[in-house]
Amino acid sequence: MQRYFLKNNQFQEQHVTISGDDAHHIVRVMRMSEGNQVICCNEKGDSALCEIQNISGNEVRLSIVEWLSEQKELPIAVTIVNGLPKGDKLELIIQKGTELGATMFVPFIAARSIVKWDEKKGKKKIERWNKISKEAAEQSHRTVVPQVVDPVNMQQLLHLSKSYDYKIVAYEEEAKAGETTKLHATLSNMNKGESLLVVIGPEGGLTDKEVSILSENDFILCGFGPRILRAETAPLYVLAAVSYQTEMMR
Amino acid sequence: MQRYFLKNNQFQEQHVTISGDDAHHIVRVMRMSEGNQVICCNEKGDSALCEIQNISGNEVRLSIVEWLSEQKELPIAVTIVNGLPKGDKLELIIQKGTELGATMFVPFIAARSIVKWDEKKGKKKIERWNKISKEAAEQSHRTVVPQVVDPVNMQQLLHLSKSYDYKIVAYEEEAKAGETTKLHATLSNMNKGESLLVVIGPEGGLTDKEVSILSENDFILCGFGPRILRAETAPLYVLAAVSYQTEMMR
Repeated sequence: MQRYFLKNNQFQEQHVTISGDDAHHIVRVMRMSEGNQVICCNEKGDSALCEIQNISGNEVRLSIVEWLSEQKELPIAVTIVNGLPKGDKLELIIQKGTELGATMFVPFIAARSIVKWDEKKGKKKIERWNKISKEAAEQSHRTVVPQVVDPVNMQQLLHLSKSYDYKIVAYEEEAKAGETTKLHATLSNMNKGESLLVVIGPEGGLTDKEVSILSENDFILCGFGPRILRAETAPLYVLAAVSYQTEMMR
Repeated sequence: MQRYFLKNNQFQEQHVTISGDDAHHIVRVMRMSEGNQVICCNEKGDSALCEIQNISGNEVRLSIVEWLSEQKELPIAVTIVNGLPKGDKLELIIQKGTELGATMFVPFIAARSIVKWDEKKGKKKIERWNKISKEAAEQSHRTVVPQVVDPVNMQQLLHLSKSYDYKIVAYEEEAKAGETTKLHATLSNMNKGESLLVVIGPEGGLTDKEVSILSENDFILCGFGPRILRAETAPLYVLAAVSYQTEMMR
């Protein structure tokens, strides 16, 4: 069933009001009419089965049939920090990472990031990335849309990291050395509701200096298996591992 | 270090001989010369550190410095069967699936596969897909190149499945119903050296009829977590789960 992510103020006691792009989607793209049902999610991640009551102009009014108790979100909140990669790789990371349950995406201006961040063009990119995460959230039946935020530098990353319960870095040298226990040790320690920050380098990897700074700030260096994963594959690996550990092994 | 996948007959007692595309790559692309080292893998998955002794014309002769004991392959052999998808999605599955350790890829002509398979054009596609798996195997430091075989129909798939120790189907309806235990039950039962066949539908999913046929033939229907994964994301999820279960949780 089609789902829409709405603002809290679009929900009244028994009704939901949709206008703008989402209304256009319901009326013109999906060609829905009175009596059709959709799922509406509020900003807290609650979802309600709703039925279209009335369409007038560019406004759709729906009644709330029932609040659903969907369990679609990972039990722990995972933020993916990716060294700003070349081309449209971040689009793939955001689309697939959203399907796999990420809570937030943070582009990181790493020493070896080849792309230079342009504030002006950047604003459009951020908008586009957030559109991708919204569409992927709808398709994968999530109840929360992951946010893609402005790129951060190392100082901002360290500041951000202070609010997380666990912090790890995907580190190729650890993978080459056959390190395979720290990721499992970390994930199996985590409890429902806790947060995990995962840092993954750009194509050329993190520099030794970046790795030592992160390590000094209590990031755990983890191998993600014995094979060398590309910058865009590593976030998908860790999200699948989190799902397997926290959702499948219960 | 650059690695090359060679035929067994390119290995002599103490030497390796490389010609053709790989020789071109060593001499023209990598611009290597006498004394440079590369890793050469034979068809059994053994790998050797080799040093260039001599380059003449389009032939490179190397001495074997030492045989390596790399552990790069998943402890269980995973074959990914994907309903033939639209566009170049199979390219993504093969590239990322190779990084994540798959042993073989089998395109499946499913009832809802939109693409019609054209024998003539198909041959070129299979070549291209095998080239992608070879390049991804080199990049991810694997010792075996996964094979991409010709597409199969249901009858051929059932025949193929008889040689596998475990057989599972990614089944969306199970995921929607919150089924989260069968994948873990299956993977945690498996022993080193055993084989797993994973069937994933095309974009529109498998038909009810296909699911019952597979189920009657002892395939286990598994949910891959509570979110709905795209056809190209599901194989990556299961490969990461296999790695986490068999490599990280030891």
